Amino acid sequence: MRAVVFEGYKTFPVLREVERPVPGPGEVLLKVAGAGACHSDVGLFHDFEGDPTGLLTPPFILGHETSGWVEEVGPGVTGFSQGEAYLVYGPTGCGRCPACSRGQDTYCARPHEVGYAAMGLGRDGGMADYLVAPARNLVPLGDADPVAAAPLADAGLTPYHAIRRAMPHLAGGGRSALVIGLGGLGLVAVQILRALTGATVIATDLKPEAMEQAEAHGALTVPGGEGQVERIKELTGGRGVDAVFDMVGVDATLALAASTVAQLGALTVVGIGGGTYPWNFFTVPYEVTFSSTYWGTIEDLHEVVAMYRAGQITPVVERYRMDDALDAYARLRDGELSARAVVVPHGW
Amino acid sequence: MRAVVFEGYKTFPVLREVERPVPGPGEVLLKVAGAGACHSDVGLFHDFEGDPTGLLTPPFILGHETSGWVEEVGPGVTGFSQGEAYLVYGPTGCGRCPACSRGQDTYCARPHEVGYAAMGLGRDGGMADYLVAPARNLVPLGDADPVAAAPLADAGLTPYHAIRRAMPHLAGGGRSALVIGLGGLGLVAVQILRALTGATVIATDLKPEAMEQAEAHGALTVPGGEGQVERIKELTGGRGVDAVFDMVGVDATLALAASTVAQLGALTVVGIGGGTYPWNFFTVPYEVTFSSTYWGTIEDLHEVVAMYRAGQITPVVERYRMDDALDAYARLRDGELSARAVVVPHGW
Amino acid sequence: MRAVVFEGYKTFPVLREVERPVPGPGEVLLKVAGAGACHSDVGLFHDFEGDPTGLLTPPFILGHETSGWVEEVGPGVTGFSQGEAYLVYGPTGCGRCPACSRGQDTYCARPHEVGYAAMGLGRDGGMADYLVAPARNLVPLGDADPVAAAPLADAGLTPYHAIRRAMPHLAGGGRSALVIGLGGLGLVAVQILRALTGATVIATDLKPEAMEQAEAHGALTVPGGEGQVERIKELTGGRGVDAVFDMVGVDATLALAASTVAQLGALTVVGIGGGTYPWNFFTVPYEVTFSSTYWGTIEDLHEVVAMYRAGQITPVVERYRMDDALDAYARLRDGELSARAVVVPHGW
Amino acid sequence: MRAVVFEGYKTFPVLREVERPVPGPGEVLLKVAGAGACHSDVGLFHDFEGDPTGLLTPPFILGHETSGWVEEVGPGVTGFSQGEAYLVYGPTGCGRCPACSRGQDTYCARPHEVGYAAMGLGRDGGMADYLVAPARNLVPLGDADPVAAAPLADAGLTPYHAIRRAMPHLAGGGRSALVIGLGGLGLVAVQILRALTGATVIATDLKPEAMEQAEAHGALTVPGGEGQVERIKELTGGRGVDAVFDMVGVDATLALAASTVAQLGALTVVGIGGGTYPWNFFTVPYEVTFSSTYWGTIEDLHEVVAMYRAGQITPVVERYRMDDALDAYARLRDGELSARAVVVPHGW
Repeated sequence: MRAVVFEGYKTFPVLREVERPVPGPGEVLLKVAGAGACHSDVGLFHDFEGDPTGLLTPPFILGHETSGWVEEVGPGVTGFSQGEAYLVYGPTGCGRCPACSRGQDTYCARPHEVGYAAMGLGRDGGMADYLVAPARNLVPLGDADPVAAAPLADAGLTPYHAIRRAMPHLAGGGRSALVIGLGGLGLVAVQILRALTGATVIATDLKPEAMEQAEAHGALTVPGGEGQVERIKELTGGRGVDAVFDMVGVDATLALAASTVAQLGALTVVGIGGGTYPWNFFTVPYEVTFSSTYWGTIEDLHEVVAMYRAGQITPVVERYRMDDALDAYARLRDGELSARAVVVPHGW
Repeated sequence: MRAVVFEGYKTFPVLREVERPVPGPGEVLLKVAGAGACHSDVGLFHDFEGDPTGLLTPPFILGHETSGWVEEVGPGVTGFSQGEAYLVYGPTGCGRCPACSRGQDTYCARPHEVGYAAMGLGRDGGMADYLVAPARNLVPLGDADPVAAAPLADAGLTPYHAIRRAMPHLAGGGRSALVIGLGGLGLVAVQILRALTGATVIATDLKPEAMEQAEAHGALTVPGGEGQVERIKELTGGRGVDAVFDMVGVDATLALAASTVAQLGALTVVGIGGGTYPWNFFTVPYEVTFSSTYWGTIEDLHEVVAMYRAGQITPVVERYRMDDALDAYARLRDGELSARAVVVPHGW
Repeated sequence: MRAVVFEGYKTFPVLREVERPVPGPGEVLLKVAGAGACHSDVGLFHDFEGDPTGLLTPPFILGHETSGWVEEVGPGVTGFSQGEAYLVYGPTGCGRCPACSRGQDTYCARPHEVGYAAMGLGRDGGMADYLVAPARNLVPLGDADPVAAAPLADAGLTPYHAIRRAMPHLAGGGRSALVIGLGGLGLVAVQILRALTGATVIATDLKPEAMEQAEAHGALTVPGGEGQVERIKELTGGRGVDAVFDMVGVDATLALAASTVAQLGALTVVGIGGGTYPWNFFTVPYEVTFSSTYWGTIEDLHEVVAMYRAGQITPVVERYRMDDALDAYARLRDGELSARAVVVPHGW
Repeated sequence: MRAVVFEGYKTFPVLREVERPVPGPGEVLLKVAGAGACHSDVGLFHDFEGDPTGLLTPPFILGHETSGWVEEVGPGVTGFSQGEAYLVYGPTGCGRCPACSRGQDTYCARPHEVGYAAMGLGRDGGMADYLVAPARNLVPLGDADPVAAAPLADAGLTPYHAIRRAMPHLAGGGRSALVIGLGGLGLVAVQILRALTGATVIATDLKPEAMEQAEAHGALTVPGGEGQVERIKELTGGRGVDAVFDMVGVDATLALAASTVAQLGALTVVGIGGGTYPWNFFTVPYEVTFSSTYWGTIEDLHEVVAMYRAGQITPVVERYRMDDALDAYARLRDGELSARAVVVPHGW
């Protein structure tokens, strides 16, 4: 089968023939419907010098945002029918530590015993004709379009989990949220906040087109530059923002987040920009929870799919043929995409 | 000044002249903007045989849903300007037990030491030209219409508090809520649920007009009769409802609530219909929290006002002159009102 | 191998030879260290007329409280070493619905597709020389005594889960808890409450010996009879109990629970006595969450084991040889046991 | 009456005669039982160059940890009897914004309108023969010793509030907590953690005597220096600490906190050392809530008093006569105290 393989750091991936995998015990073989190309893939092959975690040893097939149709099940797997559509929860831990037992494989207690972080991140992913995934990682899509669903596995799940954690801060009248950075994840964050809360949703980005998209989803936008903090605070009645989501994570966005968050608010850093914020008792308002998040849980993904099926999340995707997959990655690397690229290996 | 006075159980209230009150220490005199007539007032003068709690000894002025403009402040009160509009939090406890300290005077530890339950319930209320209220019970309305705001003090606050408590059950994708009973409180409940959550909001009532109003606010409606439970469950994908609000509280509605709530769901009884449900381990789904609520907190009322000012709650009111106040109560008693009656003593 | 087989309703189980099972994909064969005999087994073979759920079709091997040593692993299972001791999480759902994904197989969305409720409840359990269990159901015991650990799988997990849910009601100064019924589960509940909270722990039972054991674990005890409600309330300063746990669940204990719980408190019914309580808005204090619970989650069981290893829970057990297993069940049925009977098939 | 007056920044306070205050509307005059001398007082008169907040304008009487007996009540105050003992909640906001309405005057929305932060911090405090306090700020002590209770108003309330917020992280088996800095607040933190949770409580300080006191309260102690992080993690089974409390707040303690906290843990900075931590997505574990806290709520103080009365908190105090109050402050400034200094103006 065809697959986009990550062969080494600082090396552009290759599209080549590999053997079609066979599902082992507890696993399912999916015929891939869609495979999203994610910025963190570019980080992997283009930015990093080497494996930062010890869990991402090349070669492996890329693709941690995958949907597909059941083709075949491995030993001991029941309850699936051929052709049913599923979305794949990427993280793959040991399956039996406390974190995995609650479906949060991202925080598996034994990642190095397992040897990889996720499908598409250390273990073969979905940027291929077929994917083998553990049965417990599959979330049913019903009759919803599986292609547009693919990015939800990361670009939907990651903001969803971050917002879900911050919901106690948003559950009431007179609340506000701020989304900093309106790429794929940020625009989904705006949609989720608008659908699940009554908060005033404020959004900011350097690109005017991204701001327009956020406005179309119901956000109030505030451009960067002088007076940005004041304008944001003004929209909250001067009180500051109850829940700030920094989808970028560089020095400047962290500082913006800390300058706009309200007392008792939640400041969540989702973006892996790697910036630093000099936390100090006297500069961050009292009782703000300053925290990062990383991806989400299996149960979160069921809920993301429920929102997708209810029309509450609409990912904007651009479809690519399998043979153009490398082109998608090149354009992603070069900042030329304005929507999530989804590789569609079968049919069109 | 004119006032609607409750003079005895089983006795229709009278409209008569009483002395205009003088604000004591820590109190504020309000010129009344609006005073809502509530079903529980009818319970008081029409249904009850006597004082069920020891805190409702007549005579006192009715009216526990009041808004008004600052007219005069008592000793020790600062920070108010004449003419500013406020909504009144009715419950008035000791002010310093743990419950009162958190603004939940409804659960005051010393109600009998205080001697009354609330303004309009044991202590003089707002169905009059003027009202004296403790300064801490006043929530600023800013430039919002104070007349339409009046019912929010109970018909807004009560469902808000009930929903706020159940928010953890509704904070996510794929959730559902059911409102049983679409009178004043039920229709506000629908609006709050639609504004603050992404849940599928289902509503039911015996009156087709009430159902239409709920639909206009975005609810799905299911009529009573055979198959009602099944139709409600169907709308939740068979799983049952995550948060059921029974705004009626008679045997039949309690049974409906228990038959439709999902495992791990919240079943909240708001209506004081006095019905009984035979709770049994094997008939209520596992981990359902079956509970009552009563009114709300001062902080809740701030949040209700924030929703009102943001256009997220729109109470439907019918205005009455002060001289027609008894007419409003008579029509309320006789079930002839289709909106909340608000008595407007000053101007029109 | 030897096994205690439930062969039919209203029929005492038999001890007989069956074939030693072979672990399938994702499964592990355990050499049983201890198998607890639980009251619900007696319910199964002695009280019930037939299968109440459709998931408990005989014949199957009893035993849903099992510990054991790894003997052999099935296809696809890694990370286990022969001889390591594990405690078995009994419930066995589909493994991939939302509830199972968070390790709460008790609330599996597809139990009838799976066909059984748990090991020892529809599927072969641990009252035998060997048990086959899914790898994800195994919680490591380290070097702790596996025999005394066996009852924790139900008699520890069930009260732990109930208490864990009620922790927000107990997390602070001046709180109180009441345990009604001091059998195996109740006595563990007392230990957990004393270890994890600062609450005043009150306990009650009909048997003086049980009361003494509760006192030895640090509870204050109140006997039944006239004045019981008043004496319990007195111990809470008149306020009522913040978290009541009814480990019995008959009419009288439900009524006691409802009479002693405080406003805003948690009333949790754990015991499956099948009693009924006539819930009414005016008899249960405001905002009490009246609810049942059922068993617990895999993560809960990890935490129970942590408490056991830290000496915070000490189950009182009475050991039986495999050949005396039926004797243990007979004594359990006849109310002659004063400690949890654990069958120890291998060695002594 | 005698009072310790803060007359200007960079100026040691003076003991002088001032007029005995008269309780205004809603206020109570207390005859002071005990007044704790707190480190933040030293910050005020010794370290600060000027008023950092605009709310601390001298002159005013020091003392924000006060207990006393009711002497006289102001207009409108009922329900108090002369001679009853109360502990004083120091913060004094507007009383009617959302934060004040829930008894959290520390986060009053209008502090500058009020003009001061608390009794003893901008408004006259309790380091005097008498104190005037708002009635709602008084928490009844019953028959407990009011002198030893005085420090609880800050040195008890502040760690209690911090721990209360972190309780969800500590509510279960196998949890751990770390207290960094074992001065007055830190030692109370250890007592609270031991009383209210089942967590392994780890403590560290530079002074061996402080470590010994923590051990006497049931903490495991780890000295500073090389290997400190490793030794702490070892005590948590390698997982890291679920809730870290930094009672110091300098660069080194913040770094220690961030190095020892577990994934999903709570890192709470209580100490106002003013240090900075360079927060970065890749150095703080995922989903750690990094936050400050400040003092507490009225309801918290009720719960602290409940713990004190139950013997769960025992402040270590050293009594000073009123005429020796300045000596107490001098020794506090010079680091010569090993217990909380409480000034006892009346009797001995």
